Order: sequence, then structure tokens, then C-alpha cells
Amino acid sequence: MKVGFIGFGEVASTLSRGLLDQGVEVLTCVEGRSPKTVDLAKSAGVELLLTFQEVVESSDVLLSTVVPDQAVHVAKEVGKNFKGVYADLNNVSPSTVKEALSYVSPGKTTDAAMMGGIKNGLKTPIIASGPGAEIFAELNQYGMNIEVIGLEIGQASALKMLRSAYTKGVSALLFETLYAAYQMDVDEVLLGYLNQTEGPFFQESATSRIKSSAFHAKRRAQEMDEVLEFLSYYEDPLMIRAACEFFHLLPARTGIIRKKPADYREMFREVDYKGE
Amino acid sequence: MKVGFIGFGEVASTLSRGLLDQGVEVLTCVEGRSPKTVDLAKSAGVELLLTFQEVVESSDVLLSTVVPDQAVHVAKEVGKNFKGVYADLNNVSPSTVKEALSYVSPGKTTDAAMMGGIKNGLKTPIIASGPGAEIFAELNQYGMNIEVIGLEIGQASALKMLRSAYTKGVSALLFETLYAAYQMDVDEVLLGYLNQTEGPFFQESATSRIKSSAFHAKRRAQEMDEVLEFLSYYEDPLMIRAACEFFHLLPARTGIIRKKPADYREMFREVDYKGE
Repeated sequence: MKVGFIGFGEVASTLSRGLLDQGVEVLTCVEGRSPKTVDLAKSAGVELLLTFQEVVESSDVLLSTVVPDQAVHVAKEVGKNFKGVYADLNNVSPSTVKEALSYVSPGKTTDAAMMGGIKNGLKTPIIASGPGAEIFAELNQYGMNIEVIGLEIGQASALKMLRSAYTKGVSALLFETLYAAYQMDVDEVLLGYLNQTEGPFFQESATSRIKSSAFHAKRRAQEMDEVLEFLSYYEDPLMIRAACEFFHLLPARTGIIRKKPADYREMFREVDYKGE
Repeated sequence: MKVGFIGFGEVASTLSRGLLDQGVEVLTCVEGRSPKTVDLAKSAGVELLLTFQEVVESSDVLLSTVVPDQAVHVAKEVGKNFKGVYADLNNVSPSTVKEALSYVSPGKTTDAAMMGGIKNGLKTPIIASGPGAEIFAELNQYGMNIEVIGLEIGQASALKMLRSAYTKGVSALLFETLYAAYQMDVDEVLLGYLNQTEGPFFQESATSRIKSSAFHAKRRAQEMDEVLEFLSYYEDPLMIRAACEFFHLLPARTGIIRKKPADYREMFREVDYKGE
């Protein structure tokens, strides 16, 4: 089994190490890439070929792990005559993955999405959909953790996006509700009561989400823009649109947050102040 | 200890039975009320006085448990010279409870809100705020389950409203997200993955909320209108506004639902159909 990586960052490096340990041959090409990338590939111990064409010709499975805005470009460059499984593992929207894979020779294309941080190594949960997904999932024999969720390109990236949309929507709703409660001095009691109906880890996860929401508001807003664009194709997504607007407006309400707040009330005091 | 009820429905009847069992004297007046109310009061075994004035004069604690649109009216009628604890237990907004209690002689007024169904009897969790809350909570000696959450009138009803706003907002977000997932045939996998991050009872509670949302959409829309009006006083509540709109539009999307759907996918098939 030979696995080739197109693009070699943190994800490729971690998966490579795991696959090499399992006796899989791992290939990539770092021609024209930054010294950092070259180091990463060398220290992982993967086989470095001189051209991407050689990687393509030698691989049973090609994994595209590039920066998101390169996903379509690399698929165009290397996918045309590839006969193996081409899996797009990039963090891109369903429409982008569809566009990218439209340039790859059909039959074994795979939409793949990581459902957890790469810190779990080879065991990081990955979902896959598309005509090549079942064959791609044969890498589970070598310790990977791939779940096939459907036959269509777009399903895996849609699922990842929808999960993210839901949890970000919850964060926005929590922020809004708890901030109102804070203004009436009932925020802690509210969290206690919600903890009774929303499950045992609610309070901890809720306060953590509120603090992250404010700290990462700009990134959240960009991610929600993508979700909104995607969902608008299916329906008029009222809640997602509101969450998107919420994250766009949040930085103006909180002011600049230089480090993640230790305490949500401390942050709310600032929001309060800015609002006056 | 004498407890008088103004208004005698399901809540008053259940609490009365519990308090009578604990040796508390319970009073009400059913003058001019429906035969059903008279029966309810008689079968509970409470002492029936001829006039509301007598109830007021004889009670240490008055509990207002009327239909919501009568809360202000009865407070005007009976509260003026009352010297004991007047607790408004009606399901009304913070502004309504403030208005009602403004007609009651000051000092021991209490904003009270039930945080669970009355089926738990005397043990139904009740939150209370206001100058009379601590004295009202002395009824815990007789088996009641009252938590004092603050000194201000409006805090208890605000807390109840905010909890409801949050859970209804989550329902709207869930419906929207899961319906999109359903259209892409990844709804069940999405629920499975959310179950991993949102706590162990997520999936069960999520599907139940989606079905209830559709079945009770009109009532949810009315309740959200009230929440929106209330919160708009504090900020521009983007998520709550969206949830409000969601529930207003939902009946047109689902069509008439005569009984609670057994399965959310069955219901989504109908939504699908209406949307085409």
C-alpha cells in the first residue's frame, strides 16, 4: 500500500508518521516548498520524490492536504489521469470539494473530513463519502479511523460543516441569553438550571464556548459566512444567518480581546462597558 | 400558617393538596367561578370563603395562580391593603409581574416561577425573587421547593423566560441544521457526532425537541414573541429574533400537524414535500 500526500503540513506529517509505523509506504514531493515543509517531511521519514507527477504515478491513495484555497488547484494539477483513490481531506465547503474532485478522473474520488483534532494521530476520526470512500476506508487496516457516511461527494464536508454550524449557533444563542441574564444578575442560576435539562457537562462547555466565541469571533464569522452560503442553496437558514450576523457584530461589542478571558463574567463586564 | 389562593386551577389544586397534608391551612374563594373550578377546590379539601376579601384578610401568604391575562387585574383587586407575602406564580413576563406587583402593598411582594411541571406536586421547583422571597421560601418547611434567586421583582420570571428562550432557540437551530442534513442524507450521522460533543442524552432530547417544535410551533411563536419583546429592552437579540421568526414560519412549512410525529424523518418528508 502506497499513500501519497499532496501538500505536507501538520495533518500530513502526523498521518504519515502513523502510517509509516504501520508499514505503509508514504510518498510526497516538496519541490518548491518552504524549508519548514521540507523539514517536516524529512523528519517524518516519508519518501521524497522529485515531482508531483511521480507521486501520482506511484500512489494507490492520494491525500490532498493543502491550504484550503489550493484544494481546487492541486486537484486540477494532479488528478486528471490518476487511477487510484483521490481523497480531499481539506477543510473546504461541499461545493469546493465537488469542484476540486470534478477535475480528478472519476471512479474513486473521495470527500474526506476530519472530525477531531489531528492530535489524536492516526486515530483522528475521519468521515468519508463518494465513490472511492469504501476503498479509502481500507486504510483502517493500517490503524486509521475512517467512517464511510455515504456515496456522494459533498456529504462528508457537509456533515462537518453542519456540525460546526450547530455548535457555533449554540454558542451565539448562549452568549446572547447569558448576557441578558448577566444584566439581570441571574446568569449563574440560569446556568445551574440549564445544567439540569441540557446534560451534565453543559455548564462547563457553555462557559468555555462563550469565552471562545468572543476570542475567535472574527474566524467564527468567516466560517459562518461559508456555512450560510452553503445552506442558502437548500433553504432560508434563519438561525444560521442570525449566528453569522452575531459573530460579525461581536468584536464591536466586546472590543479587542487580546487573550482568552479567564472568566465569562469578566468579559461581560467589558461588553457592558462598551455598550454604554 | 395560612395560605390563600387567588385563582384555583391545576397548580393551586396540586399545591393545596400537598400543603393540607403538611397541616397548612389553605383558603380560597370560588365565588362566580366555573363548576369545574368549584369541584376542583372542593375535592382538594381547601376552606372556601365567601369573598376574596375574606381570603386576603385571613392569609399569611397569598398565591396568585390565575390565567396569565388576569395577573394584573387580580393584583389590583386584592393586593392594595394586604400585609402578608403576595407571590405571583403566574406564567407571565417580567414586565407583567412588575406591573401586577406594583398594585400590591410593598414590602413582601414576590415574583415566583415554576421551573418544572406541577406533576411533581409540592416538590415542583419554584424560583422566587423580590422583597418577600425569603419569607415566601419559609413554605419550604412545609415541603415546598422554593429557591430564592434575588431581591428584585422580575428576576424569577426573567430567569424562567431566558431558560425557555435558550431551549426554544436550540430547538429552532436543531430543526434547521438537521433538516439540511436530512436533505443531504447525513442526518443520522450528524446526530451521532453531535452526541459525542453535546453530551450523552443529546440525541434523544434533540429528536424529541424537533418533533415538539413542529407540533407546538404556534404556541412557541407566541412565547418567543414575549421573550423578544422583553429582551429587546436590553439589546438587539439576533438569535432570539431569528428563533421567533422560525416558529412563526414553521407551520406554513410543515402544514397542519394533527398529532405529534412518531419520527422526525417522517415529519421532514412532509416538510420536504411542502417545500417543492
